[in-house]
Parts: sequence; structure tokens; C-alpha cells
Amino acid sequence: MKKVVTFGEILLRLSTNVGERLLQADQLQLHYGGAEANVGISLSNFGYDVNMVSKLPANALGDAALRHLQSNGVKVDHVLRGGERIGTYYLESGIGERSAVVTYDRKHSSIADIKEDEIDFDSIFEGATLFHVTGITPALSPVLSELTLVALKKAKEHGLMTSFDMNYRAKLWSQKEAADAIKPLLDYVDICSCGELDAVHLLGIPEADDRLQEEEKLAYYYEHIQALYPNIQFMASTNREVLSSTANRLRGNLYVDGALYRSKVHHIEPIVDRVGGGDAFAAGILHGILDGMSPNETITYATAASALKHTIHGDSNIFSKEEIHEFVENGSGKIKR
Amino acid sequence: MKKVVTFGEILLRLSTNVGERLLQADQLQLHYGGAEANVGISLSNFGYDVNMVSKLPANALGDAALRHLQSNGVKVDHVLRGGERIGTYYLESGIGERSAVVTYDRKHSSIADIKEDEIDFDSIFEGATLFHVTGITPALSPVLSELTLVALKKAKEHGLMTSFDMNYRAKLWSQKEAADAIKPLLDYVDICSCGELDAVHLLGIPEADDRLQEEEKLAYYYEHIQALYPNIQFMASTNREVLSSTANRLRGNLYVDGALYRSKVHHIEPIVDRVGGGDAFAAGILHGILDGMSPNETITYATAASALKHTIHGDSNIFSKEEIHEFVENGSGKIKR
Amino acid sequence: MKKVVTFGEILLRLSTNVGERLLQADQLQLHYGGAEANVGISLSNFGYDVNMVSKLPANALGDAALRHLQSNGVKVDHVLRGGERIGTYYLESGIGERSAVVTYDRKHSSIADIKEDEIDFDSIFEGATLFHVTGITPALSPVLSELTLVALKKAKEHGLMTSFDMNYRAKLWSQKEAADAIKPLLDYVDICSCGELDAVHLLGIPEADDRLQEEEKLAYYYEHIQALYPNIQFMASTNREVLSSTANRLRGNLYVDGALYRSKVHHIEPIVDRVGGGDAFAAGILHGILDGMSPNETITYATAASALKHTIHGDSNIFSKEEIHEFVENGSGKIKR
Amino acid sequence: MKKVVTFGEILLRLSTNVGERLLQADQLQLHYGGAEANVGISLSNFGYDVNMVSKLPANALGDAALRHLQSNGVKVDHVLRGGERIGTYYLESGIGERSAVVTYDRKHSSIADIKEDEIDFDSIFEGATLFHVTGITPALSPVLSELTLVALKKAKEHGLMTSFDMNYRAKLWSQKEAADAIKPLLDYVDICSCGELDAVHLLGIPEADDRLQEEEKLAYYYEHIQALYPNIQFMASTNREVLSSTANRLRGNLYVDGALYRSKVHHIEPIVDRVGGGDAFAAGILHGILDGMSPNETITYATAASALKHTIHGDSNIFSKEEIHEFVENGSGKIKR
Amino acid sequence: MKKVVTFGEILLRLSTNVGERLLQADQLQLHYGGAEANVGISLSNFGYDVNMVSKLPANALGDAALRHLQSNGVKVDHVLRGGERIGTYYLESGIGERSAVVTYDRKHSSIADIKEDEIDFDSIFEGATLFHVTGITPALSPVLSELTLVALKKAKEHGLMTSFDMNYRAKLWSQKEAADAIKPLLDYVDICSCGELDAVHLLGIPEADDRLQEEEKLAYYYEHIQALYPNIQFMASTNREVLSSTANRLRGNLYVDGALYRSKVHHIEPIVDRVGGGDAFAAGILHGILDGMSPNETITYATAASALKHTIHGDSNIFSKEEIHEFVENGSGKIKR
Amino acid sequence: MKKVVTFGEILLRLSTNVGERLLQADQLQLHYGGAEANVGISLSNFGYDVNMVSKLPANALGDAALRHLQSNGVKVDHVLRGGERIGTYYLESGIGERSAVVTYDRKHSSIADIKEDEIDFDSIFEGATLFHVTGITPALSPVLSELTLVALKKAKEHGLMTSFDMNYRAKLWSQKEAADAIKPLLDYVDICSCGELDAVHLLGIPEADDRLQEEEKLAYYYEHIQALYPNIQFMASTNREVLSSTANRLRGNLYVDGALYRSKVHHIEPIVDRVGGGDAFAAGILHGILDGMSPNETITYATAASALKHTIHGDSNIFSKEEIHEFVENGSGKIKR
Repeated sequence: MKKVVTFGEILLRLSTNVGERLLQADQLQLHYGGAEANVGISLSNFGYDVNMVSKLPANALGDAALRHLQSNGVKVDHVLRGGERIGTYYLESGIGERSAVVTYDRKHSSIADIKEDEIDFDSIFEGATLFHVTGITPALSPVLSELTLVALKKAKEHGLMTSFDMNYRAKLWSQKEAADAIKPLLDYVDICSCGELDAVHLLGIPEADDRLQEEEKLAYYYEHIQALYPNIQFMASTNREVLSSTANRLRGNLYVDGALYRSKVHHIEPIVDRVGGGDAFAAGILHGILDGMSPNETITYATAASALKHTIHGDSNIFSKEEIHEFVENGSGKIKR
Repeated sequence: MKKVVTFGEILLRLSTNVGERLLQADQLQLHYGGAEANVGISLSNFGYDVNMVSKLPANALGDAALRHLQSNGVKVDHVLRGGERIGTYYLESGIGERSAVVTYDRKHSSIADIKEDEIDFDSIFEGATLFHVTGITPALSPVLSELTLVALKKAKEHGLMTSFDMNYRAKLWSQKEAADAIKPLLDYVDICSCGELDAVHLLGIPEADDRLQEEEKLAYYYEHIQALYPNIQFMASTNREVLSSTANRLRGNLYVDGALYRSKVHHIEPIVDRVGGGDAFAAGILHGILDGMSPNETITYATAASALKHTIHGDSNIFSKEEIHEFVENGSGKIKR
Repeated sequence: MKKVVTFGEILLRLSTNVGERLLQADQLQLHYGGAEANVGISLSNFGYDVNMVSKLPANALGDAALRHLQSNGVKVDHVLRGGERIGTYYLESGIGERSAVVTYDRKHSSIADIKEDEIDFDSIFEGATLFHVTGITPALSPVLSELTLVALKKAKEHGLMTSFDMNYRAKLWSQKEAADAIKPLLDYVDICSCGELDAVHLLGIPEADDRLQEEEKLAYYYEHIQALYPNIQFMASTNREVLSSTANRLRGNLYVDGALYRSKVHHIEPIVDRVGGGDAFAAGILHGILDGMSPNETITYATAASALKHTIHGDSNIFSKEEIHEFVENGSGKIKR
Repeated sequence: MKKVVTFGEILLRLSTNVGERLLQADQLQLHYGGAEANVGISLSNFGYDVNMVSKLPANALGDAALRHLQSNGVKVDHVLRGGERIGTYYLESGIGERSAVVTYDRKHSSIADIKEDEIDFDSIFEGATLFHVTGITPALSPVLSELTLVALKKAKEHGLMTSFDMNYRAKLWSQKEAADAIKPLLDYVDICSCGELDAVHLLGIPEADDRLQEEEKLAYYYEHIQALYPNIQFMASTNREVLSSTANRLRGNLYVDGALYRSKVHHIEPIVDRVGGGDAFAAGILHGILDGMSPNETITYATAASALKHTIHGDSNIFSKEEIHEFVENGSGKIKR
Repeated sequence: MKKVVTFGEILLRLSTNVGERLLQADQLQLHYGGAEANVGISLSNFGYDVNMVSKLPANALGDAALRHLQSNGVKVDHVLRGGERIGTYYLESGIGERSAVVTYDRKHSSIADIKEDEIDFDSIFEGATLFHVTGITPALSPVLSELTLVALKKAKEHGLMTSFDMNYRAKLWSQKEAADAIKPLLDYVDICSCGELDAVHLLGIPEADDRLQEEEKLAYYYEHIQALYPNIQFMASTNREVLSSTANRLRGNLYVDGALYRSKVHHIEPIVDRVGGGDAFAAGILHGILDGMSPNETITYATAASALKHTIHGDSNIFSKEEIHEFVENGSGKIKR
Repeated sequence: MKKVVTFGEILLRLSTNVGERLLQADQLQLHYGGAEANVGISLSNFGYDVNMVSKLPANALGDAALRHLQSNGVKVDHVLRGGERIGTYYLESGIGERSAVVTYDRKHSSIADIKEDEIDFDSIFEGATLFHVTGITPALSPVLSELTLVALKKAKEHGLMTSFDMNYRAKLWSQKEAADAIKPLLDYVDICSCGELDAVHLLGIPEADDRLQEEEKLAYYYEHIQALYPNIQFMASTNREVLSSTANRLRGNLYVDGALYRSKVHHIEPIVDRVGGGDAFAAGILHGILDGMSPNETITYATAASALKHTIHGDSNIFSKEEIHEFVENGSGKIKR
């Protein structure tokens, strides 16, 4: 069982029931998530020995977040306890033409106040195979920005594969701030989730010729990124066509050894909950790579994993490898009886 | 804050959960509505000083109906209390090919037994800008038919704009009865919600040439109505293509100064609750006119308001102006985060 | 009121809420069903005097199953009590691309342990018009296989029409076992629900030429079956195109007097619950035949009945004849008010 | 299986969830009941062949009421369909010191508009053993008052035992009206549920000496009633000490052959739903008499039945004879495992 | 309709369902409250023209809090919008021996960051009769402490009655801090809710002789407080005997003109929700005084109001004057039908 | 972190909602439990490294049971997968005078079909401190009876403390069968949960003199047991006075070194869910012993743990040590805020 380490914030999500507005809600559904936690949970459900590094308040909400991780088999020995509060957000679920609306209440969270010396990455990385972090973690505080760099460097020193998902969030920082913080990280990254917007707005790649096909554009951007960061062996992204809040078309891309591999298009309708869909994809990519799948198998698997995640409530992809493989083979909506 | 007055019945709706029949239901959802109440609530949520004129029984259901209006900021000083019961109906929610089914239990309601001298429209209209009523109110009793005429006349005397929504309901009266009652009202109306069926069956306009386009037909009817009632400055309607109980295509029409303006077509799927969709449209039209929007802006806004209403439970459109404008600009189903 | 007799297992279904996995469920919905019970319930709701022959444990779950039948007017005097347990299965509801998953827990059920002399079909068939059974009953035990044959023979002796639905379930027996058991039954069958796969895999009809249309193939198979079993007067089946767990296209087929009659295609979306959809169809066919409808009316009615069943929770079709006829005329998703 | 006939109104009850007021409710629970229906359902669950005589509107709510009766095995062939609406009431559930509050909306119900010739009691009473009706039925309309008398007379002609429960409801009629209507009925009654207040206020028995014990008073009243109506063989009632909405102390009384028999006191806490508690008692008394129990067994059984009813939601006592007997023996709150 | 002004924080409460721990909750109930909002809502439901002064974030949770106030008729023109977040707390509901547990997440709330010049009390107090505030408001920030003093002074200048509820919260400040802030306020207070602990720990009154009765002790403390603050005309408090989370005994005390008046003891069981019980009492006292009730009537009314509040979910007392008076007369748990 | 091993069946419980009968339920709540699993979960929540030995089917219900254990931190590496089904039971929740009723459906479970060589206790006990098993495990099959003996012997060989809870279940075996199987086990037991009935009916201790106090009787039985099995160092039990399904009085007993220690009496009302109350007690005893508490502290702690368990839904005691200690100190129903 390969050991995986992820590092980031664990968030509390409070969601309205479908067809209700936050304005009028008298009941909310709770889910615990966060990009790195979600990837970790999915990898744990694929059979990895996943260890989450984070910080949670020493109260019942912190306990509940841990319980969520544990129920999915994630190890929580490296989740610090303390600080003021758990980062929180409210999600007014969208439907049809109406978009979901997020009301953030995540400031002053325990992890945002972490100190530089609270985490001992050397011991955490012992025996590990992979380290995963996203662009959200460095956005939370200067200390976390510094710690992300430290973690990636140490991960490479310890011989781990490293994975970084850009995950740019405009509500957390500007493109300029993000670019300044993220560029130095990329020198230590083996696997990178990034797309066209990241390439242009964060990494400064000149825009591709408009007459190119979607596929050609993506290859163009990935070539340029790899020219800048030759250490990056794998780049992955999804194209999501948003027909409505309830219907999306999703296609996965994986760039490796100078070639672009694309999954089939999944028509996802109705969407039960799209939060965590990207993290399910990222976890699928990581599993494909760690498991030695071919690029085609990997992108097929990862996109299928993401499509399945859209059919269940909650941030976490709780499908097993076997279920995803079966979905790839037979997925169609037939009753199995 | 412009003052608006609406006059009509407030109804109790008892709806089944989706996928359940009334035959087997052991739980029902409560909503309070009624065409004029719904328009009033929407205008209140747009920022108007809305005053509802109605009558409710002096019991807990009457109190609850008032509470619903108040929670949306509607003033209820002119809602009389007394009489026998609140008008009620049961809605077995439709889905897919299966239609919703209404079981009416609205006879003997408090407002249907209102007396002619119970309402003092002179004081109610003081300082008001707009009066809105629909064809349901005169259908409820001879006294209410008379009172609707009185109210419209007095509204004009007080210098208000007047708005009338045909809202023909075959279960309440015959086309003949409706035509007899409604025609005299139209002499006092500035803004009229009416469509092709109203033109033909209530107002006696000869049917348009079948070879005309939908758009041309509508213009033809509106021209003829305006020839009969030159006082009517604005006419509005929607074309609803019912793909199923769950999917509709909706387009709004506004006729003003001899020209027809049409919104884009909204593909509404899935529909959460279509009750009140027409009232949300009517309120949108009224706001566009009161707010001095252009005809194109008005019909865009009103149809968007109606589309949004379909995505939430309940009769009331509880979206703000800002939310509807944002939906017009960005509406697409993307998460805002 | 014509008397109908059905014979088979009554099952307890425990279903997850939509968007939840069985893995994480802390609440399940209960439904009682079973192919023959479902057909019986639908016929009872059409106005027949339906009598179910079955066996249930003498505990609260057995009582609850009886209560379900009774609430639909089915007579339960011939439901034996005793044995170990009620046959049970868990249904993880599918949605979109994700299929529903059945976890069976139906072994050791009371009916599977029935003894040969526990049922007196002679008295049960007194005064009856129709006997209905499916291929699930003989699959449950050798005794039930024998009893099914006995029942069909006695039904013919008593002058009843007999109906048999193939309902092949791979988890219950092999094709070989099924073929051996079912073939002798067919000599006593007047109405048979069976499709292409049954023809090829159970009855050994050579596969039709691939260049034939769907319609021609079906006619080919039905001709061959009728050549083997000239006693079978009616054959019926549905073609279900599974777009997803949520959207199916359904078309019904009826073969009678050498001609194939087909319904229109129903686009069923969203599907609330497809369990029992086939039984609703079978009951519709039986009613059409018993009621003397034309073949076209029959297949239209039966397919409409099945489509309606998909819009409600539970295994049972609880629509009346009148409602199905109205759906055939007006079905479209319009509110009836 | 002895045949029982009951005659009365079937009501729709809409109840709030515990701890919620009707004023603010957005969800209500549905139950179907009515005094005579409740007694019939309980007797059906005890194994009698119960036939309900009533009238319901020809709509989905009428269908649902029938379904409720059928699920409990009650025969509904004599429930007429037609008229305007089902009698309805809203129940704001009480708790602790706060009382439940009923908001009636039962006027204009289908049964209240019944015509004299709509019911053929002669055929209904064929083969029957017992007829049960309560003081609510004659209170609903003059025709029903007349029909109640007719029914009781015919029941005696056909040799049935007759049972009458006073059930005085101040909101339906005055004591004077009730007395005038009920007194003539009592000449045809064998079993009468009535208490101290009925004796004094309806039957005009002089108040008992205040210094008497509860038990002595009751005996005094029953003696006087029997002196007036020597045909009455059994009189029964309960003493309910209302500690709060949640806690009651209940004791049953049965007067037969000049002697008073009393049950033990049941401490009922918490009360889940007390509606129908009196009807469960009445049905228990009737079963004791029909089953030939001793007076002590009868009053023990009836009071236990009533106590059990308080522990479940809904108007109906759905416990079997065996369960009530077991409760009498072992009732204590121990888990049975 | 007398005008009342209240000033304080509006809080979001997120509560677990009964019998669930926050640790494991996947669903929470929302309620909006806060001591001053609760008193305002209750007074509005008694018929006063209540105006709330507060500050809420300009997001959906702020909108929802306003909607709650409006639904109870409270005017919200003086609720400022802006700042970072709404003060929030999580309530793990207690039951039986297990206590409720509060997890606070109320720091950085919009009102805590209010600036001194944001509120214009002069215009707010125009035409008002009463001003109510509690000890929670000055505890939230130094500016709010200052503003509370300003408000009380201005209220007296404008001729209002002033009401102050001590409401000491140990999690917000120390006794020393509270004493320093509150003492200067008391010079401007007419009506004060305070008890024995406040007298000793905040106001420094020497402890009463232990041999005194509860009643004598209370009188002793109130005498001493009045000696220090002769401007205080009314003092009120409750004695709550906590038998368990589910059962409390509650008695109200009112001290006026040197005499102590006490209500009867309410045995409250089961408690649905005790949050807001103290505020319901305070509002009852204020209504008694404003309405000119006698001290005995006042304390009876206020304690009854508080007892009723315990029987419903939510922070707000939504009973009307009439309902409370009826409860005082008849309260007993009997069904009213 | 001390290592603990438990061995037994994991059961699926399907419970009705309060106030509903299984007969009529359309929804059930799921809980996973089993005596040894419950003890393990509680010890894990106290901070022990708990390892469960069991067998579950390789299906979604088996996965769900594991997820439940994991969410509480229990290690599941030694839970075998395979066999036919998960042991299941239905619980009709009791309330007030009405008892809960269990409908068992636990035959043919995966663990009941376990083979002798499937478990390697030698490696499982490596490094462990405590082994816990109950009398349910040997009752499930002859192989499990044998394995329980093997496990206890090996546990002693490996130097573990051993704990055995009698847990006699009359539905699983006779007293004679139980006695024959259990007596040989007791030679290897250090800590034994057993009471008066076990002593008399299973171990054959002569009944104590009736004139003795409860306390003296218990001491008498424990003395006699210890005379027979001098290896047993600790004996524990509870006295439960069942006032009703909703109210119990509970007292714990611990016998050690010839002395009996008793806890205070907990009045538990209302009971949310008493399933698992005994297991919470057993876990409390084990923690007291492992943690080196005094006998008085131990019995206080264990009984408090059991009382707390009664206030939450589910079989598992999910309170931490700190929460139980705090309950012991302050438990009273006061809100902590």
C-alpha cells in the first residue's frame, strides 16, 4: 500500500436543499471537504495509505472533520489541533439555468494561522511515494505559501513524486499574487493539473492562435509550460461545457511525453453535486500514474471517476477502483440485478 | 420607494413531494400564494412599497398567510380578517410526461364573501403609483367583480397606473361570463397581460391567418386589442412550450407603441416549481415599466425573472433586482466561487 | 368485476435516497413488490378482483407486505404465513450515467420453502378469469417450479386465461436451467411476455438476420415462438433504450394474430423509479385483453401505464384506468387547473 | 368473521410537526380518521369483517381516504362518492403545558350533504352482528340526524347489536340540540359510550352528590341512565387526567348488569398522538363484548388498547388482538429480543 | 401602536437534531436570534411597532436574518449592512441528563466592527416609548460598550423608558470587565432584568444571609440594587430549576415599589427548545409594564410567555397576547376542539 | 496507545422512526452494531488502538459496516470478507408503556459460517493488552464456540487481559446450551460482565436468600462465582429499573477484591436509544481498569458512559473520555455557553 501525503485546508460546507435559497433555508446539509482532503479521500478509497497534513480547531467541528477523513480510511495523525475556527462556506445549490452561489466565511481559520515550525515534513514524508498539494494552500497566508515551497522541496529531497493542482481562486488572491507564489513551486513539481487559463494568466504563456482546435491549443500550452518547467512530466486538465447547473459535458486531458491524450465526453445529467469533481479527477490521474496505467487508460479512468463523483452528494469520491473500472466498461444506467 | 397596491385572493397550496401521488401522501408541503399576492411579493423584493388588499379568515391559517407576505416585506394593513376559510388547493406535483394535477378546495373562502363596503380604496390608493389586479378576482363573486371595476376606476381617478392580468381560469367561470365581466374593466387598464387565447376567446378578436409566424400573429392580436382599448399602453405575454412537466421553453413578449419585443428563449430544465412563474413575469414587466427600462430590457428582465422563479419551491419570486440582472448577464449554471 | 389470480414472491425492497450510496446511507426507503404482486396491484387498481397466492413470514414484515397489498385492494386470503424470512433486496438508486445497483438478500425466503401441498389451486381458481405468473416463481425452488406447472395446468382445466412473463433473472438460475423449467410451462400459456433475448437464449430460436429492422426481427421471433407454442395467442414486450439511469426511451410491442402492433415511443425523463415498470406494462396488456381493446389500443394503454409508473416511487402502478386513458389523450406535462 | 357496520364521516387531518406552530409550518402530516372510521379500523385489525358507510368526494382526497380504510382491511363498498369536499381539520400538536389547537375546516363536506335515500341500510345490515355510530353523525345535518335514527331502528329490526358513542362536540351543536337529537336514538342502543358530562348535560340526570367518590358518582349516573333506557346493556367511559399534553393518566370504566368495572390506571408518557384514543377504547369494548370476555377482561383490554394507540401517530389503532393481550400481560417498556 | 427600539447583535444558530451529536451531524437546523432581536420579535407579536438597530453582513445570511425579523413584523430600516460576517454558533441539543453544548463561532461579526458614527440614535428614538438593550451588546467591542451608554443616555433625553437585561456571558468577558462597563449604564435604566448572581458578582452586593428563604434573598438583593440605582423602577428575574435538559421548573420574579411578586411554578417538560426562554420572559415583563398590568398580572404573563416559548423550536416567541392570556387561563394540555 | 482486540458479529439494525410501527413504515434508519463492535468503538473513542476480528459479506452492506468502524477509528484489517449476508434485525422503537420489538433476520450470516482456520489469533494478539468477547459469539455456531475458547486461551498465552460479557440471548440458544459452552471459557477470563440471572441460570449458583438487600445478593453471587473461577478479578453488572420504554433508572456494580462498588442511580429520561447501553458500560469498565482508576471511579465512569449512550441514536458510544468525565462532574442539563 503506497503512502501518499496531502497538505491543505479542510473546509466545512453548509449547503441548501435543492430548490431552496439560503435566504429562506431553515435546514442545511453538512459536508467536509477541501481540495487536498478530497484527493486524499479518493486515493484512500483506491487503496492507498493516505496521510493528511492540516490544522483544525480543537472543537466539535474539528472532530467531525477528522471523523469524515477517518471514515474514508485517511490517517489523521498529522492534523494539528488548535486555532480559532474551521474555514466555512455556504453553498446555495444551483439548478437548471440558475447557478450555485457560494457565500464564503472562511477567514481566520485554524490553518490560515499556522506557524512555520508546526509541521515536521521530514518525518511525515518518511516512506512516502507521493505528495499532493494545490494552489489553494499557498493562497491562505504567507506562512502557508512559504510552507508549501518547503514541503515540495523536502518531498523531492525524500524522493517522492510531487503533484500540484493550480486551483486558482479569484476570491483568495489576485492573478499577480498567485503567479508570484506559484511559479517558484513549479520547479519541484512532477505532475501538474493546469489548464489554458492558468497558462495564460498565471504562467504568462502567450495566447494560442484562435484558429487552432481546442485540442491543438491545449497541446500548444502544455508544450510551452513544459519548456519552462521541464521537470513536469504530466499535465492534466478537464474541459467542462456548462449546459446548465444540472447538465455538464466533461472531457479529460492528459499530456505526457509530448503527446495529448483525451477521454471520451461524459454527458453528466442530472448533476447531484459537482463540488469535488475536479479533485476526483486529480485523484484519478494520480492513481493512473502510480498504478502504471497507460496514458489512455489513465485519462479514461480519471474522467470516469470525476463523472461518478457528480452523481453523489458530498465533496468526496467514495467509489472504489473496481467500481470505476466497471463504470468505464458498462456505465450506462442499466439496473444491475 | 414607489407604492404599489394589489387586490386579490391569498390561497393555501398543499403540494405532494415529487414522485408521490396525493392518493398515497402522508406529508404535504405548504405554500401561500395567489396571483396578486405573488406579484406583490416580487415587487416588494424589487424594492417597492407593496400593499395587499385581501381578506383572510381570523384563524392560524390566515395568520400564516400574513406572515408569508410580511416575510417578503409586503404591508398587510389592508388585509381584512373574517369569513369562513382560506381558499385551498392541493397540487399533485407532475414530473416528466406526467402532468401536475390540481384538486381545488377553494369555495366558501373569506374573500369570496367580501361585502361591497368593506374596502376603502380611496384611502388605500393615497400616494400610490400602481394598482395591479387579475382576472381571478372578478371571477370569485359578483361583489368582487363589481369591486374590481370600482377599484380600477378609483385607481385612475387617483392618477395611478393600472395593471391587469387576464389569468382566465376555466374552473372558475365560462368564457362568456369572463368576457362580460372583463371587457368593462379594460377601459381602465394601462398595462395588460394577455395572450392569443384571451384575444380570441374573451375579447372576440377574429383568429389570425394561420400562415402567419407566431410573432406576426401576436402583433396582429395586440394591434386589434389596442384598437379596441387605446388606453392600454403595454401588453405582455409568454409563449411556453411544454416539453414535459420537467422541461419547458419560455419566451416573453412585450407590445408597446405598436412594436413587439421578444426575449430570448429560456430552456428551463429541470423545473422545480412552475406555480407563480406567470406572476413573476408580470412583476418583472411592471418593474421594467416603473423603472423606466427600455422595452427590450423590460422583456429580457421579466422573462429572466420568470425563468428564475421556476428554479425554486413556492409561489413567490424571492430574487432581488440585482440577482435578476446578474442572471441576465451571467446566467449559465457556473458556480460562483 | 373479473377475478384474477397471481402467484409469486412478495419482496421487501430497501432503497437509498437519490445521490446517496448504500455504503454511506443512514436511512432507507421501504417498498414491497415482486413481479406478480405488482401486476396484481395494478389490475386491482384497474378494477379487477385480484387474489394473490404467496407465502410470507409470520412477523411484522410479512404483515406490512399484506398491508401494502390490501391498501391497493388486493385480496390476501391465499397468502400463507410461516417460514423463515421475507425475501429482501437493497437498491442503490442510480442517476445519470451511474447505474442502480442491487444487493440481493433474498435467499431462505418463506415462499422458497413452500411445500407442494400447501396451496389448493382448485378452490383458488373457482370463478376466476385470469391466472398470471412469471419466470421468477419457478426459479425460486424445485417445488415452486413444479407448483408453477401444476398451477398453469389447473388454470387451464378451470377455463382460465393464463399469462406468463418470462422475467429471466441471471442471478437466480442459468439459461439452461430456466429453459428446462420454462418450456414445459409454455404449453399452458395464452399470453406471454417475452422478448428477443428470451427467444434466442431460452427458447433456442435461431438469431434473426442482422439486416432486419428491429420491428422485423421481433416479428420473426414471435412467429417462431408461436410455431412452437401455437396455444400462445398474445406476445408482448418492450424496447427500452437506456440513455441513462434518468432518461429512457420506451416502446411497447404486442403480437397477436400474426401481426405486430407497436406503441409510440415514450421519452421518460426524469425517471423517478423504474422498478415495476415492466410489471405495469404487463398489467396494461392484460387489461387491454380482458377489456376487449383492439391491439393498438392495448399496446398504447400498456406502454402509457408503464411510462406513468416510472414517474412515481414504489414498485406498484397505482394509476386508475381513467388516469391512464387521460394520460394517453392529454399527457404532456401541463398543469390541470 | 363477524360482520360489523359503522356509519359516519371520514375526516382529513393535517397536523404540524411537534414543536412547530401552524402559523409557521411549511409541512404538514396527513392522517385520515373520524370516530366511526377509527372504530371500524380497529375492529378490522381485531379480525372483524368491517363495512364502513360514508360519503366522500370523487377526488384524490376521497380516494386516499378509501385507501387508508382498505389498508386496514375495512370494506368500502358502501362509501358513496360525490359532493363537494372532504371534511378537514388542522391540528397544531400540543406538547407539555401547551395544548393542541384544532382549526376546523369541515363545513360543506360530502357526507353533510347526503340525501335520505342514498343509503340502503337493509342490504347493508344483511348478515351483520353489530352496528356502531356516534353522536357526531347526527350533528352534521338534519338529514344525517334522521338517517342515524333510521339506521339504529333498522339495525334492531335486523337483529344487530347496536353501539352508540355520545362524542359530544361543542363546535358542532349546542347541548340542547344534541339532547333533542340523541335522546330518541338511545331507545335503540345496546352499548353506550357516555360519561358524567353526557349524563348531566345531555340526558338531564341530576348532578351526583359531591361527597361521593369518582367511582360512586359514575355508578350513580349509569344507574340513572339505565333507568331511563333499560335497553342499554353496557355503558363505558374513560377518566382521563391531563397532566400535560405529553402526559395523561387514563382509566377505563365499564358498567354492566348493575356493576361498575374499572381498569388499572395507565400512565401514558410521552403521548405520541392522542387523537383516536377514545375510538380505540370504544373498539376495545366492542371486541370484549362480541368476543364474550368477562367485564373485567373487557375493560382491561379496552383501556390497554387505548393506551397503546397513544404511542403511535395517526387516528387508527393498528394493533392486533394478540399484541394488545401481550401488552396487558407484559407491557413495561422492555425490549423484546 | 407604541414604538419600541432594540439594539444588539443578530446571531445565526445552527442546531443538531435531537439525539445527534455535532460530531456526526450531516444536517443542521437554522435559527436566527440574539437577545435583543428575540425581545423585539416577541413585542412585535404582542402588537408593538418594533425597530431593531443592528448590523449584518451584505450577504445572503444577512438577508435571511432580516427576513426572519420581517416575518415577525419587526422593522429593519435601522439594520446596517456591511462588515465581514454574521455571528454564528452551533448548538448540540441536549436531552435528559446530557447538557446542550454551544460551539461559538461569533468573532469578527459585522456588528462587533461597528463604528461610533454609524448609528443616529436621535432619529431612531423619535416617537418611541421604550428602548431595550442587554449586557451582551457592550461585551462585543469597546465601541459597542460606548454606544450602549450613548444610546441609553439619548433614550432618556428623548423621554423613553429604558430596559436593560444583564445577560452576563462568561465566554465574552470577565466579571470585572462586565462590572466596569455595566455599572455606568445602570444610571439610565428604568427596568432591569437581573438576578442574585448579577447582584453579587457584577454589582458587588454582599451575599445575603444563607438562612434566608429564596424569596427573602431576592428581595434583599433587589433592595440593595435599588439603593444604588434609585432610578430603576422594575427588576425582574427567573428561578430555573434544571431537573434535566428536558425538564425544568421555572418561576418568575418581579420587584416593584419595594415589593416582590412571584409567578406560579411552571413545570416545563418536555422542553422543545429553551434558547430564547429568557428573552420571552423579558418581553413579557415589558409588555406588562407598557400595558399597565398589575405586578401580579405582569409576572404571571411574563412567566407564562417564557414557558410557552420552551414548547416551540427557534429563538423567537411567536405567541400573541391573546394566546398567552388563554394559556394563563386554561393552559393544561387539553385539545381544543 | 494500548492495543485492544475484540471478536464478534457486526449486525445491521433497521429501526423505525419513533411513533411508527414496522407494519406501516416506509422509511427505516440504519445503524451498524453488535456487542463486541460497540465495545471496540467506545474504547477507540477513549483513545485505544482497537482491532476488530469479524467476518462480513463482500458487498455494499459489508463495506458500510466497515466504514462505520473506521469512522470511529477502529482498525478493520482483521475483518474477513465473504459468506452470504450480514446479520440483520429490525427494531420497532418503543415509547412510553409500549416496548420496543425486535424482528430478527440474522441467520445465515457471514460470521456464522466462519471456518476454524480463517483467523490467526497469534498474529492478531501481537502487542495487544486486552481481548474482549461476549457470550453472543459462541452462540452463533459450533465453530464460533470453539474459536472463542481458542481465542481466550491464546490471549492468555500472549499475556493479554481477557474480558467476557455473558450477554445471554434466549433467542440464540437455551440456558443449558449456553452454560455448557460458557463455563469452559470462564477459566480464561479476567474481567466478567455478569449478573444475578447469569449466576443462577447459567452458572448454577443457588439462589440467594430473598431477605437480602439487592446489594447483598449481588455480593453473594459474585463471591460464589469467584469461588468457582478464582481467575476472574473483576465482575460488573448494571441494575436497570424499567419505568417505561422512555424512562429507566440505571445503576452500575463492580466487584473487585471481594468488595462491591456501586454507582449513583442515573434517571435516564427520555431515552433516545438504549441499544448499546450495556456495551457502553462494559467499555467504561474496561477503560477504568486499563487506565488504573479506583473501583469507585471506574463504576462511576462506566455507568455515566452508559447513561450518555442512551441520549444518542445508534449503537455506538461516541463520547470521549473528557466528555464523560465532564458529565460526571457537571452533568445536569444546563446549556454550556
